[in-house]
Amino acid sequence: MIRAGIVGGTGYTGVELLRILALHPHVEVSVVTSRSDVGTRVDALYPSLRGAINTVFSAPDIAELSDCDVVFFATPNGTAMLMAQQLLEHGVKIIDLSADFRLKDAAEWQHWYGMEHACPALIAEAVYGLPETHRAAIKNARLVANPGCYPTAVQLGFLPLLETGLIDPHHLIADVKSGVSGAGRKAELATLMSETGESFKAYGVAGHRHLPEIRQQLALAAKQSVGLTFVPHLIPMIRGIHATLYARLNTDIGSLQSLFEQKYADEVFVDVLPANSHPDTRNVRGSNFCHISIHQPQGQDTVVVLSVIDNLVKGAAGQAVQNMNLMFGLPEQIGLNMVALYP
Amino acid sequence: MIRAGIVGGTGYTGVELLRILALHPHVEVSVVTSRSDVGTRVDALYPSLRGAINTVFSAPDIAELSDCDVVFFATPNGTAMLMAQQLLEHGVKIIDLSADFRLKDAAEWQHWYGMEHACPALIAEAVYGLPETHRAAIKNARLVANPGCYPTAVQLGFLPLLETGLIDPHHLIADVKSGVSGAGRKAELATLMSETGESFKAYGVAGHRHLPEIRQQLALAAKQSVGLTFVPHLIPMIRGIHATLYARLNTDIGSLQSLFEQKYADEVFVDVLPANSHPDTRNVRGSNFCHISIHQPQGQDTVVVLSVIDNLVKGAAGQAVQNMNLMFGLPEQIGLNMVALYP
Amino acid sequence: MIRAGIVGGTGYTGVELLRILALHPHVEVSVVTSRSDVGTRVDALYPSLRGAINTVFSAPDIAELSDCDVVFFATPNGTAMLMAQQLLEHGVKIIDLSADFRLKDAAEWQHWYGMEHACPALIAEAVYGLPETHRAAIKNARLVANPGCYPTAVQLGFLPLLETGLIDPHHLIADVKSGVSGAGRKAELATLMSETGESFKAYGVAGHRHLPEIRQQLALAAKQSVGLTFVPHLIPMIRGIHATLYARLNTDIGSLQSLFEQKYADEVFVDVLPANSHPDTRNVRGSNFCHISIHQPQGQDTVVVLSVIDNLVKGAAGQAVQNMNLMFGLPEQIGLNMVALYP
Amino acid sequence: MIRAGIVGGTGYTGVELLRILALHPHVEVSVVTSRSDVGTRVDALYPSLRGAINTVFSAPDIAELSDCDVVFFATPNGTAMLMAQQLLEHGVKIIDLSADFRLKDAAEWQHWYGMEHACPALIAEAVYGLPETHRAAIKNARLVANPGCYPTAVQLGFLPLLETGLIDPHHLIADVKSGVSGAGRKAELATLMSETGESFKAYGVAGHRHLPEIRQQLALAAKQSVGLTFVPHLIPMIRGIHATLYARLNTDIGSLQSLFEQKYADEVFVDVLPANSHPDTRNVRGSNFCHISIHQPQGQDTVVVLSVIDNLVKGAAGQAVQNMNLMFGLPEQIGLNMVALYP
Repeated sequence: MIRAGIVGGTGYTGVELLRILALHPHVEVSVVTSRSDVGTRVDALYPSLRGAINTVFSAPDIAELSDCDVVFFATPNGTAMLMAQQLLEHGVKIIDLSADFRLKDAAEWQHWYGMEHACPALIAEAVYGLPETHRAAIKNARLVANPGCYPTAVQLGFLPLLETGLIDPHHLIADVKSGVSGAGRKAELATLMSETGESFKAYGVAGHRHLPEIRQQLALAAKQSVGLTFVPHLIPMIRGIHATLYARLNTDIGSLQSLFEQKYADEVFVDVLPANSHPDTRNVRGSNFCHISIHQPQGQDTVVVLSVIDNLVKGAAGQAVQNMNLMFGLPEQIGLNMVALYP
Repeated sequence: MIRAGIVGGTGYTGVELLRILALHPHVEVSVVTSRSDVGTRVDALYPSLRGAINTVFSAPDIAELSDCDVVFFATPNGTAMLMAQQLLEHGVKIIDLSADFRLKDAAEWQHWYGMEHACPALIAEAVYGLPETHRAAIKNARLVANPGCYPTAVQLGFLPLLETGLIDPHHLIADVKSGVSGAGRKAELATLMSETGESFKAYGVAGHRHLPEIRQQLALAAKQSVGLTFVPHLIPMIRGIHATLYARLNTDIGSLQSLFEQKYADEVFVDVLPANSHPDTRNVRGSNFCHISIHQPQGQDTVVVLSVIDNLVKGAAGQAVQNMNLMFGLPEQIGLNMVALYP
Repeated sequence: MIRAGIVGGTGYTGVELLRILALHPHVEVSVVTSRSDVGTRVDALYPSLRGAINTVFSAPDIAELSDCDVVFFATPNGTAMLMAQQLLEHGVKIIDLSADFRLKDAAEWQHWYGMEHACPALIAEAVYGLPETHRAAIKNARLVANPGCYPTAVQLGFLPLLETGLIDPHHLIADVKSGVSGAGRKAELATLMSETGESFKAYGVAGHRHLPEIRQQLALAAKQSVGLTFVPHLIPMIRGIHATLYARLNTDIGSLQSLFEQKYADEVFVDVLPANSHPDTRNVRGSNFCHISIHQPQGQDTVVVLSVIDNLVKGAAGQAVQNMNLMFGLPEQIGLNMVALYP
Repeated sequence: MIRAGIVGGTGYTGVELLRILALHPHVEVSVVTSRSDVGTRVDALYPSLRGAINTVFSAPDIAELSDCDVVFFATPNGTAMLMAQQLLEHGVKIIDLSADFRLKDAAEWQHWYGMEHACPALIAEAVYGLPETHRAAIKNARLVANPGCYPTAVQLGFLPLLETGLIDPHHLIADVKSGVSGAGRKAELATLMSETGESFKAYGVAGHRHLPEIRQQLALAAKQSVGLTFVPHLIPMIRGIHATLYARLNTDIGSLQSLFEQKYADEVFVDVLPANSHPDTRNVRGSNFCHISIHQPQGQDTVVVLSVIDNLVKGAAGQAVQNMNLMFGLPEQIGLNMVALYP
């Protein structure tokens, strides 16, 4: 059994990790930390976990965490970078669901996240944890930077087009919509039901923290820098991300459908829907799948890719477990065979 | 492997059966019928099942269904009673999720369901499929009448009080609220999102079809006829039932909490929450649990029981699989260890 | 023009007052206070009021408020009682939407609200602002205690039965459900969309602050003390209260429908629906109406009353304006002819 | 008083017309037709209108409608074109909320709407009812084609940029999201709450009926044909449209904010928010406003315009009343001073 620790177990990504790991046949959750809830049973705070998780919140402690085989950070940004070095020295593998190790340029990280990076030495070593692009490196990684939710949906949609050079990489548009659980479990006015229910809006149009992450990763695929307009929106629902991606085709190759199907033929969690489909976030809710459709409306030179995930699963905890499976030599999909909850 | 057939696979209880059975280690779904979708892949209609169910809808056919070990009816009322006798003769076990075999009095059934019963001979044989009250009979049953969603939540909440004679059985009140999936997957104005979203109402106060079912079963527990005021309401959400039950105490025994805890100590799917809790439907969403709390406000003689289930799981498909496990001698909880989807 | 001030203009009842008063033909909103937003335009915080309210938030100041003809307190509990005496001395009429002057027993108020009452001398003078029961007194009042949202819905439903002595007053049951806006505009985990969306629960079963208020007022109607079990629930929607009321009939008078119709024949804002109706909260959303239906299921001795209001209108700001109209000798319905927003 | 008739009073646009006209000081609703509800009181079907509308549904009848000064068609497509000629001959003004007279090219209309146009002679005369672009013509019109909901939001956002030639008109992108009430009041599976709640998807990417309407009108503004990629999405809420518009700037003029503010300075219902704002659909819910924001993220050459309306008000019934006011020489905003319902 893999002994797993979760630092920051009271946010939505933490709870989602617990939901998934509770049923993982090769994992035992041995430590769940929360500074504010030390001594409380996890299932007292989260009755959804009654019967599934039999643990008490503890304070984060390097010694205790060092007994784990893997530690997941489900913390706010700025925490993992303070503890990663010590845990690695104890031989613990780390999967960081926060943003601390996602950007390769420490200066850019500091610009967007508003604090100095406490552990720049590890940035180079950290492997970006998108299995569909970095599988080999993840298998050998000690430290994985789990991708953001928006970046996961956007990358999986743009990758086949950028890698093949079929689209103009300088004017990409990602119009992306997210359920409110993406904002996390924090006492804030903005995400009250009375504020977000029955309403829809864009936010952060001037610049969202996921923008540099997406640009960095798309540039790798395009083998050149990319230009991206990224507009996130808030959907009056809890789970799900829908990315609507627009790009100008350089050339008309005929079947974009085949291109996508071939690209993802061996990817268990990326599912290219039949031609003319419209993926629906409900169909991946609670599952680790990404559903993708490709359209070329009226045969014009603008391609439209629709990409949906559950922001807490493939956009966070599910992808983290997928990375863990790779890092420990397990079958990639083990423990992740959840079927979406419909209706 | 148990070969399972589902008759009426396009409603919400049918899809939910597929979601659960797809991951059940001892079941193979061999037949899924739908008259209106013959030849269509199940996952074409329900993309949530892509990768989980690899079947095509067929027309309901006794010969084909007779190859199954068990057939689930997830049909509208009035269908199972037409096919049950033949299937039983072929040695097929039947679990009927519709109401055809729930009422023991054929005349009453005809009154509430507005048609003549086509198969009254089987009514007596049919076992009411609430494992918490009829476990032994279910294990030996050929034909199980799976309980209604409201009746499940109400019975589990009232049972400990009625069996012990602690409450006045003549003036029970069940104020029950359900998500809209309980109304089924039918093209109707009343359950459009524009009609039910952001709104709340009671319905069927004059008399709902689940009233005689609840009365029949509570009378068994009370060993006398009961009086019940049953008021169902529609919640602007998809899944979940919340029963708020009121009764007058005959005597004050002190700890109702202990009574409930002892009653359900060995029941894996009935979970009595700690004292002073308020169960939340989200904590059982997608799972087979019933969460129950007991209150005696201001120490007065009115007891308040709060009982929540997922109407499609413990209120339908999950309970059906629990019954199947019992009928085939499997561990009762196998294939049902889903953790609720929170948030 | 009546010069109106609003103390505490940033909560949902404050904004709702502004929505209504902006279109009232005899009112000019001259002061809106908010300690935390001094100097900010009201419509900068609430763009829904752009073009309707042309005011800047100021700090609460007795001198400035004394220029008003009426001051509404849309503050948390404990504020109005600190300012009321001084404003009255300046000849300002007061309508308090908080709970400071609702309970006639200061000791009980202190028990439920957890603080000492700062102005017990005014409690006796304060008029309970339910026009349907206290119209004459309201017309002459200097200080009106605007009722709570739950108490409004519950009283209007029980009154005809209690006043006529038709029901047992010792075992009343009020199973009441509210949208989340009733919890106010506060940064809290419990009312995040991720916490309350797609879920339903009871809360405060052991005792809610509206319980003593309801009991006090029902006792006036019954001319004796009453026994009440009050169970509030949270609905996953924003606006609306649905009260489902249960009582035991002492005698069967035949037409409860007529009783209610006659009782409310002259009440412009209490609308008794036709027999066998089920009121829906959507049909009063944004309006000052209370819709009521009466049922006697299966002709038994338990009567069921269904009563719905918009918690922010008839349950708060609309009722406050109705009271203001009465206090200033205006037609009761002026400025309140909003039609509910359906769908 | 203007005598108004509504043909097709049972859909959401019909009910919304009734909500608005009930309070219009110069309008008397004299006829409301519905073939399926002849003889039923309007407020029996729509209790939200109790006390506001005192009319009975009648069958559509030219003679009766000819007594009206104006007739609104709130019918499915294909009805208004059958009755318009006769009503005009009787001197009745017509405002058609369906699509029958929106497209100037009858062949294109037939292509998109799948039927032959029954009244092509009137197409040329019909005035496109967007007051912000056709005010003068509307004032003198006998027949107004009320714009679609998506086209209203998209046009108001793109107009200032296209009229000034600042953007490339050949590659416009409109990523638009709508609440489900836009789908109308029809018994359909696709808009059940269980299907659309808690989910988000695009639809009609290959081609939506509003595409040719938007292209036609944008071409007028651009004085050349335009290229448009139009992707509609369904939001899990009832009311509201959010258009996110993307275009490539030909030149950088500095302040796009000023351009928009000047363009709409005299438009009472188009409200350009302060720089860096994000309009929220809730802030126009129930009102006739369009809120607009302009962004140029990271100073790049892609401009992003955010435009929100209530699809049933500025996108349908409110705009129709605005047109009526113009046609009858009334102040444009009379009867339309609704304040949005927040929260």
